[in-house]
Amino acid sequence: MSAALAGRTAEVLLSPKNEDEVVRIAAACAKHRVPLVARGGGTGNFGQAVPLAGGAVVEMLGLDRIVWQKPGAVRAQAGIRLGFLDQELQKNGREMRMHPSTRKLATLGGFVGGGHAGVGTVNWGILRDRGNVLGLKIISIEETPRVLELRGDDVNLVHHAYGVNGLVTEVELPLAPAYEWLDAFERAAEFGMALATQDGILKKLVSVHAWPIPGFFKPLEKFLPTGKAAALLMIGAETREAFEALVGDFSGTVSYCVPEAGLYEYTWGHTTMHALRADRSLTYLVCIFPREDTLGAIKRVHSRLGAEAFLHLEFKRFNGYMTAEGVPLFHYQGFEQMTRLYRAFEAEGVRIANAHTFLLQNGGMKDLDAAQIDFKRAVDPHLLMNPGKVAGLDDLPGGLSGAALEAAQLPASGWAY
Amino acid sequence: MSAALAGRTAEVLLSPKNEDEVVRIAAACAKHRVPLVARGGGTGNFGQAVPLAGGAVVEMLGLDRIVWQKPGAVRAQAGIRLGFLDQELQKNGREMRMHPSTRKLATLGGFVGGGHAGVGTVNWGILRDRGNVLGLKIISIEETPRVLELRGDDVNLVHHAYGVNGLVTEVELPLAPAYEWLDAFERAAEFGMALATQDGILKKLVSVHAWPIPGFFKPLEKFLPTGKAAALLMIGAETREAFEALVGDFSGTVSYCVPEAGLYEYTWGHTTMHALRADRSLTYLVCIFPREDTLGAIKRVHSRLGAEAFLHLEFKRFNGYMTAEGVPLFHYQGFEQMTRLYRAFEAEGVRIANAHTFLLQNGGMKDLDAAQIDFKRAVDPHLLMNPGKVAGLDDLPGGLSGAALEAAQLPASGWAY
Repeated sequence: MSAALAGRTAEVLLSPKNEDEVVRIAAACAKHRVPLVARGGGTGNFGQAVPLAGGAVVEMLGLDRIVWQKPGAVRAQAGIRLGFLDQELQKNGREMRMHPSTRKLATLGGFVGGGHAGVGTVNWGILRDRGNVLGLKIISIEETPRVLELRGDDVNLVHHAYGVNGLVTEVELPLAPAYEWLDAFERAAEFGMALATQDGILKKLVSVHAWPIPGFFKPLEKFLPTGKAAALLMIGAETREAFEALVGDFSGTVSYCVPEAGLYEYTWGHTTMHALRADRSLTYLVCIFPREDTLGAIKRVHSRLGAEAFLHLEFKRFNGYMTAEGVPLFHYQGFEQMTRLYRAFEAEGVRIANAHTFLLQNGGMKDLDAAQIDFKRAVDPHLLMNPGKVAGLDDLPGGLSGAALEAAQLPASGWAY
Repeated sequence: MSAALAGRTAEVLLSPKNEDEVVRIAAACAKHRVPLVARGGGTGNFGQAVPLAGGAVVEMLGLDRIVWQKPGAVRAQAGIRLGFLDQELQKNGREMRMHPSTRKLATLGGFVGGGHAGVGTVNWGILRDRGNVLGLKIISIEETPRVLELRGDDVNLVHHAYGVNGLVTEVELPLAPAYEWLDAFERAAEFGMALATQDGILKKLVSVHAWPIPGFFKPLEKFLPTGKAAALLMIGAETREAFEALVGDFSGTVSYCVPEAGLYEYTWGHTTMHALRADRSLTYLVCIFPREDTLGAIKRVHSRLGAEAFLHLEFKRFNGYMTAEGVPLFHYQGFEQMTRLYRAFEAEGVRIANAHTFLLQNGGMKDLDAAQIDFKRAVDPHLLMNPGKVAGLDDLPGGLSGAALEAAQLPASGWAY
């Protein structure tokens, strides 16, 4: 993907301070047919926010207000940093149901526009599940822009659509109760699944890492025994004794347990970041293990492919059942190796998303049906928003070639966001 | 069971007002070898609190104080009414994780001592799951009684043990966030399972009733269409739109939706009570549907046995997976019919508990292992507590005969509390 994105930059950076300015930007871009890409914290790693066709980058960080807050829900502007938002919510005993591992930098609009799940998904499922995003306000890209409020199922028109269909200015989210979260290490996928399916134990993160991945986490070096798998967890302080009883069942030891210390910054997408810091030759797959015999599939994949592809798992609720997402890391050798690994994972019932393309459809995660395309055309009739990301609709002149084309054509069994 | 319990009454009623008085009662009963049975709100329906050997009934309603309350947990005396406790908790935005359908009358000690699950189990699993009861204080029945604090896994020594091993004086519970719960009707088991497995939608109760059961709910008559199945639900107000989208998928209609109106008093154990009010000839089974193909088993049972046994379901998390408990109602014809129905349910993978015996082991739900028996002997060395309930340990002279013996011998595949 890097090949295809090289040298793609914007011609102008726009930083609106409020919704009126966003409306003026939308009108001006439509009038002068200037392509535009919304940008939040810049933490996405699927190339979502790279301006393929030049034009304007609209940096949303100026829209950083909480609009209102109730015990069960919050509405805030799209540019608010998630870390700040969660801090404000926690003052009232609430927090976001889920956040990405990039909580400090990522914005609300960016998370909803380009993310899919995160810390908290072990309890609440993923962002696209009904009830996890309550409402969105967007501005259409027309000479007279419309301000639209999407609610109910309609929020998924815009969720994970890479900002190709409207500038999101406000997001309304349901909240979860805030607990005092403890961070701890342990080992093994069996333990992870056992913990993830203990309904009575409070947990926000269940993440398991095969060696050598824990070796990439330099700041945690003194806590993580060399050569051993590690579990990175967030456990509610109230149910700590129940958690320790489960650890005892597995003859495990807790090597590190402290009030929230940001351990989540070694999980989900952050794991890849730490691995790349340690070794630039690494790359990854994004996969989800099957609902039936989840542990069996994990063990088979690890036993057959573990020496080449290093597993780490984040346990997640998915369609009402507990399963695990995995982002195995391996040393990049080229298209053939990647295709071979994709096929080997799929043979064990694992579904794969293609994280090596910026094309929305080719990721394998977003079902771009007629309603989605219609909506895109309605709010962005001149096809100015984040152009080049929707294959078949707004392909850029010249198209893809070489490694970028290969990357876009990697297989993807995927799963729908 | 009624036959075996007829005429069994206590000789004295004791109503302690505080823990000191409980200790004095325990000492006096031990010294004079007087059997005793603890009593809370008297809502149990497995014969748990009937004094088989006479002696004292110790009514715990005088111990009704909240000891302390934190955001994540509460500790209260055993005799507190659950309705009152929940009301106090809700003032601080919290509530019990689960409560029985008898919330108004049942006590904390009675629920933990004789109950197993309830409204909230769709989220939190059942009482015996690690983390759902944090601690218990009990008084042993010895001439010099000991005050013991049980924590971690040890709480299950006393949970659902019918008060045969120590007088519970205090219970410590973890809390859930309080939402504004809405009550609504809809239909069908598929809908119930779909809702129960929607991770993003707030729910506290998902309960589905086949006709003719809704006809037994006289106060709800005007809301429940004749001849149709009904779903009785509690949905979080914050995710109402998401819930309505799901109802739309099933082409359903919401016939009644109001802020919390006590709809749970038609579910779980209360369903039976309303049915018996309408028709005294009804009786029931207590069963749990299998984890694999839960809906398939429900449909097969309903199709093969539904004309004789009327199904209602409460969806529950069980060992980390969503499944459903069912308490089918049928017109009682005798031991042979009951055995036949038990076998027919089991043939579909359904496990059955025997709710027609007061014997702790024969219910099929409590695994009375050596540790349990040792603990019973340690805190009640003279075997005075709720005698006659633990078969093989403190059988009463004369034993069981006739219908009572038959009832105790009904098959039970059960499931462990």
